[in-house]
Amino acid sequence: MNRSRLEPLGVPESEVGFDEAATSRPEPSGLERWLVKQITSRLGPSSPVRIELWDEPEVAPRDGTVRMRVLDGKALWQLIVNPDLHFGDLYSSGRLQVRGDLLTLLLEAYRYTAEHPAIGAVLARGRKLAPDLSDSKRNIHHHYDIGNDFYKLWLDREALQYTCAYFADPAMTIEQAQQAKMHHVCRKLQLKPGERVVEAGGGWGGFALFMAQNYGARVTSFNISKEQIAHSRAWARERGLEGQVEFIEDDYRNLTGTYDAFVSIGMLEHVGKGNYKDLGALMSRALTREGRGLVHSIGRDTPAPMNAWIDKRIFPGAYPPTLREMMDMFEPNRLSVLDVENIRLHYAKTLEWWVQRYEENVDAISAMFDETFVRAWRLYLVGSIAAFVAGRLQLFQVLFARSGAKTVPWTRAHVYRDHP
Amino acid sequence: MNRSRLEPLGVPESEVGFDEAATSRPEPSGLERWLVKQITSRLGPSSPVRIELWDEPEVAPRDGTVRMRVLDGKALWQLIVNPDLHFGDLYSSGRLQVRGDLLTLLLEAYRYTAEHPAIGAVLARGRKLAPDLSDSKRNIHHHYDIGNDFYKLWLDREALQYTCAYFADPAMTIEQAQQAKMHHVCRKLQLKPGERVVEAGGGWGGFALFMAQNYGARVTSFNISKEQIAHSRAWARERGLEGQVEFIEDDYRNLTGTYDAFVSIGMLEHVGKGNYKDLGALMSRALTREGRGLVHSIGRDTPAPMNAWIDKRIFPGAYPPTLREMMDMFEPNRLSVLDVENIRLHYAKTLEWWVQRYEENVDAISAMFDETFVRAWRLYLVGSIAAFVAGRLQLFQVLFARSGAKTVPWTRAHVYRDHP
Repeated sequence: MNRSRLEPLGVPESEVGFDEAATSRPEPSGLERWLVKQITSRLGPSSPVRIELWDEPEVAPRDGTVRMRVLDGKALWQLIVNPDLHFGDLYSSGRLQVRGDLLTLLLEAYRYTAEHPAIGAVLARGRKLAPDLSDSKRNIHHHYDIGNDFYKLWLDREALQYTCAYFADPAMTIEQAQQAKMHHVCRKLQLKPGERVVEAGGGWGGFALFMAQNYGARVTSFNISKEQIAHSRAWARERGLEGQVEFIEDDYRNLTGTYDAFVSIGMLEHVGKGNYKDLGALMSRALTREGRGLVHSIGRDTPAPMNAWIDKRIFPGAYPPTLREMMDMFEPNRLSVLDVENIRLHYAKTLEWWVQRYEENVDAISAMFDETFVRAWRLYLVGSIAAFVAGRLQLFQVLFARSGAKTVPWTRAHVYRDHP
Repeated sequence: MNRSRLEPLGVPESEVGFDEAATSRPEPSGLERWLVKQITSRLGPSSPVRIELWDEPEVAPRDGTVRMRVLDGKALWQLIVNPDLHFGDLYSSGRLQVRGDLLTLLLEAYRYTAEHPAIGAVLARGRKLAPDLSDSKRNIHHHYDIGNDFYKLWLDREALQYTCAYFADPAMTIEQAQQAKMHHVCRKLQLKPGERVVEAGGGWGGFALFMAQNYGARVTSFNISKEQIAHSRAWARERGLEGQVEFIEDDYRNLTGTYDAFVSIGMLEHVGKGNYKDLGALMSRALTREGRGLVHSIGRDTPAPMNAWIDKRIFPGAYPPTLREMMDMFEPNRLSVLDVENIRLHYAKTLEWWVQRYEENVDAISAMFDETFVRAWRLYLVGSIAAFVAGRLQLFQVLFARSGAKTVPWTRAHVYRDHP
């Protein structure tokens, strides 16, 4: 109710490397023109989106309209058959151009596809549902080992949190909101000085170090990304927290011992739903009798595979579960869910900050990679905003304890004491 | 953490109508004595529970021990074969006596049966999972039409809430805590003056009238209990709220129209899990685009039928669902879960208050019914405390909206503004 309005993102369209000769290609066929008309009429007269083909003269978009320009016939067909998969590659390679606000276009695309599923959507089957250790290692490497320097250009500067922030106050900066997120999680867990915490999937180490520094916790953090572990250890040394935090380069499935708290922020998406029951058994083994746990994960209202293009280019093997699917962790393992919070709009806001920083550093990113990479990641980030705003993605924080635990929080008021 | 300790309940054992000639019955057989020894040894030496047979001399329990006295051989066998089912009847009829704290005994029973399932537990199958309209009517009549006067003797005196209260402060009285529960629900729903609310299962009308009086809502409340509807309408007249609240004697499944909020407190237990998907479809149809809903229900960590005796004698057809089972309402109907809160220990505390009031009025209740009824309801109430303390039962409040709703609460801080 009281969140700040999502402003249109004025994403710059540098359009480097576009084919300037597009207008000299063979004219679109009658069928191609007819297809564009069909989509346009289904979008409806109030839609801000205009679709145009390669032979039309370029006009700057006005009054909040967005022009999606398709530069060749094959691109048009790919878009119609399987937009989820192909839109990303076509946009990244510049065979599809967007003039105007990319977010507006993507929100319209969600509205459109909700009513008109594409032909190719029915073919999106047979995804591997339970990655084993080697799959996980490959998938995680694909995404997180691109280079710490890349992420540092656009994530928050204090804790390098590549997960949803918590804007206790919508006016917070991304740095403040990531600190607020970490406090939010620690308060839900009611962390006390000297307690032992195990973290599954520790990113660049920001949260493990935060728990040690701010709550006096002794933390053991698992991660299979080599670059992230190296970064985490260096940070622990810099901050003099080596005695309190141990970073282990290993799969969370190999953890042993018992802890007062189990925490996993933004890892469940990579676990694969076939593995949830085992993860729950591990959490149950890892917790002391009165231990508490928190899982923070992207999720869904209804089951659906990850967007095909994201799965192919950005996050191989990722799967956002529904709450029902997440219950595979808890129900078979005598764990009791105490609290579920859905903060999906906070992820939209987090992503807005990331996009802003990303665009501020776009020249450096271009120099590190290439224009296709720049466009692919822009689309991924802006597309994620659209997914959270439209409700295609959720962000769940699930707090749990063992069934019958006696020291569960009496109310949740302690979480909100310092809220504005 | 900061809740007040659950004190032992000094439940009086008037034991009226007991067979004084029990000690003159045939001596227990060697097998019967051996069975008692087996149970005793499995309870362990630190257990406060002593089991004794009908030939043993009666001794007052000391130092927190509880004596469970079995008065005939058939009672012993019934207890061993299917304690879930038979304990209740044996206790109610006085063929089984308890000297000392009944709650201590029941908590020990939960501990024991968790490790040693009874023979009869495997036979507890084939329960009807989706009551139809006529089943529901019969089941509800069984429980709620016992007489409003009976419930008025031990429920809170202001709003007659026969559902879990919310002790924002553990020192609250039951009256204060039921008011706090109703505020808690209204705050979660962010009810505003003039909004239209539909309530499925309205009890004696207390919550519908509360929403009208305190939040300016216009309420339509469904109930199939004739006595409760009559009471609700009389209250509405007394309080001059007839123009703002309409009580409809009909099944919630017949509701039509759209509302800003849907609320159901303590009804889902009677819906039957085969009906959740249809209930969700109905909630989805009943809500405006930006409408919110809240379902408050007893639940489980893992699926299990209702205790057999409760099902037979107290609440026919009741079923406490797991969160996974509850998702049948939401996932197939494009509803998005925003918030789940588990307040099971608040139900234990609510029941403590009810038991205290019940015992204060035990003479009046004896006069209304008979000693068997008095003992059955005592066991039901104290047994429910044990179930919530032991974690066999949970209390879930689930807040939801339509998928993609834009006016979902930004944080939950507004719920906690007035918390102590």
